[in-house]
Amino acid sequence: MLMVDLIKKKRDGGKLSEEEIRYMINGYTNGEIPDYQMSAMLMAILFRQMDVTETVQLTLAMMNSGDVLDLSMIDGIKVDKHSTGGVGDKTSLVLTPMVASLGVPVAKMSGRGLGHTGGTIDKLESFQGFHTDITNEQFLQNISRIGISIMGQTANLAPADKKLYALRDVTGTVDNMSLIVSSIMSKKLAAGADAIVLDVKCGNGAFMKTEADATELAKSMVDIGKRSGRNMVAVISDMDQPLGNAVGNALEVKEAIETLNGQGPKDLRELCLTLGTQMVMLAGKADSENEARKRLSQVLDDGTALSKFADFIEAQGGSREQVYDPSKLPAASETFELKAGCDGYVQKIVCEEVGNTSLLLGGGRRNKTDQIDLSVGIILKKKVGDRVSADDTIAIIHSNDADKTKEAAKRLYQAYSFGNDKCEPGKLIKQIIR
Amino acid sequence: MLMVDLIKKKRDGGKLSEEEIRYMINGYTNGEIPDYQMSAMLMAILFRQMDVTETVQLTLAMMNSGDVLDLSMIDGIKVDKHSTGGVGDKTSLVLTPMVASLGVPVAKMSGRGLGHTGGTIDKLESFQGFHTDITNEQFLQNISRIGISIMGQTANLAPADKKLYALRDVTGTVDNMSLIVSSIMSKKLAAGADAIVLDVKCGNGAFMKTEADATELAKSMVDIGKRSGRNMVAVISDMDQPLGNAVGNALEVKEAIETLNGQGPKDLRELCLTLGTQMVMLAGKADSENEARKRLSQVLDDGTALSKFADFIEAQGGSREQVYDPSKLPAASETFELKAGCDGYVQKIVCEEVGNTSLLLGGGRRNKTDQIDLSVGIILKKKVGDRVSADDTIAIIHSNDADKTKEAAKRLYQAYSFGNDKCEPGKLIKQIIR
Repeated sequence: MLMVDLIKKKRDGGKLSEEEIRYMINGYTNGEIPDYQMSAMLMAILFRQMDVTETVQLTLAMMNSGDVLDLSMIDGIKVDKHSTGGVGDKTSLVLTPMVASLGVPVAKMSGRGLGHTGGTIDKLESFQGFHTDITNEQFLQNISRIGISIMGQTANLAPADKKLYALRDVTGTVDNMSLIVSSIMSKKLAAGADAIVLDVKCGNGAFMKTEADATELAKSMVDIGKRSGRNMVAVISDMDQPLGNAVGNALEVKEAIETLNGQGPKDLRELCLTLGTQMVMLAGKADSENEARKRLSQVLDDGTALSKFADFIEAQGGSREQVYDPSKLPAASETFELKAGCDGYVQKIVCEEVGNTSLLLGGGRRNKTDQIDLSVGIILKKKVGDRVSADDTIAIIHSNDADKTKEAAKRLYQAYSFGNDKCEPGKLIKQIIR
Repeated sequence: MLMVDLIKKKRDGGKLSEEEIRYMINGYTNGEIPDYQMSAMLMAILFRQMDVTETVQLTLAMMNSGDVLDLSMIDGIKVDKHSTGGVGDKTSLVLTPMVASLGVPVAKMSGRGLGHTGGTIDKLESFQGFHTDITNEQFLQNISRIGISIMGQTANLAPADKKLYALRDVTGTVDNMSLIVSSIMSKKLAAGADAIVLDVKCGNGAFMKTEADATELAKSMVDIGKRSGRNMVAVISDMDQPLGNAVGNALEVKEAIETLNGQGPKDLRELCLTLGTQMVMLAGKADSENEARKRLSQVLDDGTALSKFADFIEAQGGSREQVYDPSKLPAASETFELKAGCDGYVQKIVCEEVGNTSLLLGGGRRNKTDQIDLSVGIILKKKVGDRVSADDTIAIIHSNDADKTKEAAKRLYQAYSFGNDKCEPGKLIKQIIR
């Protein structure tokens, strides 16, 4: 088999067979197929598409390009959750203790990654001493004892995806459904869960800007997951403005703790209850969605979920005390109250600008080697649809540098649009796809 | 400017500007733009095409990627000739002394290349002592003294094309008119001629299988050449069977000498007269095509062209004696007469199989480092439309290895198709495009 023949086949609109896709992915992963052939293939795929069968085979080949975790030693149905990403998305922090409280085992691999804030692991490092550098044994022990553990992502999870993603990024070959789906799903499948709940965001802060695009992606991922033998549900949720009020690492942890304590922003709680209900159902831990939702609300309101969170943080070296007294989490040296400056209603909040504000304050990474400042970030006080007077504070900036505070205020103000017309934020939960 | 943005622009159907094309070609030539970005761009060009303006800019950028020869010190209008390539194509050997006899200066760069037989330089090395390793001074002196000189191709002629062609070959991005045209024309333009006659082959032995495709390529090259300020003519000629009877290096030289001596196969003589007429007209050395053709026929028939050829061979170290006694050229140790084996008419000769027969006898190069056996090859005794009886010899194989002779006979026989119906070969000269 020659890669150039596979390129020509796809270029001319042909379908790649399972064997051909496996040859291509394995050859690319081990370096036998060079970048320049793969990038020509990727461009041909962009123009000719892959059908569902090819996409499944591509996903499985990428999954098998590295380690595939075996979670069979953990009792019960393992349910994983994946979000396509947005601004202020601290759902995992709330969701995992919630479902663990109902007996759903949480065996999670998380990353750091680049972005407006750190990844889940960065955020959890707001707790003094917390670490994910644990052995497989400790990982399994923690799950069986308290029902929840999080490990750092192994380097060898779907290495084909890592290589392909870097190549797609510099060759204009990102925007293709099969390539997007296989990238996400290969890693999720390799992480070993029996069932997966996807949180597919749509709106100005998401990769998918419209509900139609998000629906197509969700359906495709659900389809691919099912064809790979996993139970799948996708929730399409709003990302036309940041989720909750906090953007920034320790600030998001504080908001997660409030939510785990029965308070916190309504939208965050609602999304966690919706995603949690689906996870509990897939894990077979409730007879109906109603029952699942009721019991999840209860563990938020009666302190069970917060206690589970504290157990988890403590089990991985973190400070239980900080969970119950979040004022002891990292805090910035100065805060700045951003005023509305006019009367009216908040019409729009451009998520990306809010994210970039967090990034410029030091809350995220531009490059892999950047240090994150866990304490900085933004608390939104007014969101879409809220009535404001000129003197009202619309957001509070948490910063450790006066110059950056000024720049952040300017940038964040640009994220807001005001107008005289009353308006409503978009529906939080748009669809559930099975 | 970022290459990834140019890829996206072309991918989305945009037009690349002169500046963008120059940035891309220069960056690729000097190694700043990696192969994997260029191959994605090439595939995008395959799907989105380039318009005429882009193709001209691409051609000029590739021409300017290396040395551009200045032939202004040679008096008169310099006319170059290029063939898109076929089996048995020894036209250059006959054509250059013919037009030089009429005062058209021939300043030619030739290559060796890969293929069924060697390139023009390999063929000329059939003459003992002949070499192209001459200084620029000798090159110019020879042209002014005898009107004809051939140099080896400089390494730095359109280096962008060399790099791009190698990449296209392994990434399934050969088949695009703009890429084909710019590849051919960038080298021809860099070689410095004022006018160019193109011999665009069509048929089973050519890159362009149909007259329609050949016409499109010819028109496009003529257009690009004119827009680059050169006078252009393209002749579309038949390559549905080998040109002339000889395939192989010294065998083709012998056939060229016969033709220069007023004999030789009719089709070869006719094509040389047609191409020569166009070259003479472009060089302004005749008032009408009729006059040009008449004078060209004359120099073939009265020995002038052969004498010019002998002068040229001698001026570059070769043996004049071998020109006038071709039996002293390299000859193979054995010949084998291939019989028709049936009665009927030759319906078809698959050029590629004839070429592959020459290759397997050792007459061509599979890899750049292969040694060529100048003596081996094939003489076709029967061509399309010829009546054959079972005992008739259809071809003679010249070989230096009994095993190879057997294999060659088998292969060559497969190139022939016989049938009971009378048939006619395709028209030799199909169109002339200006």
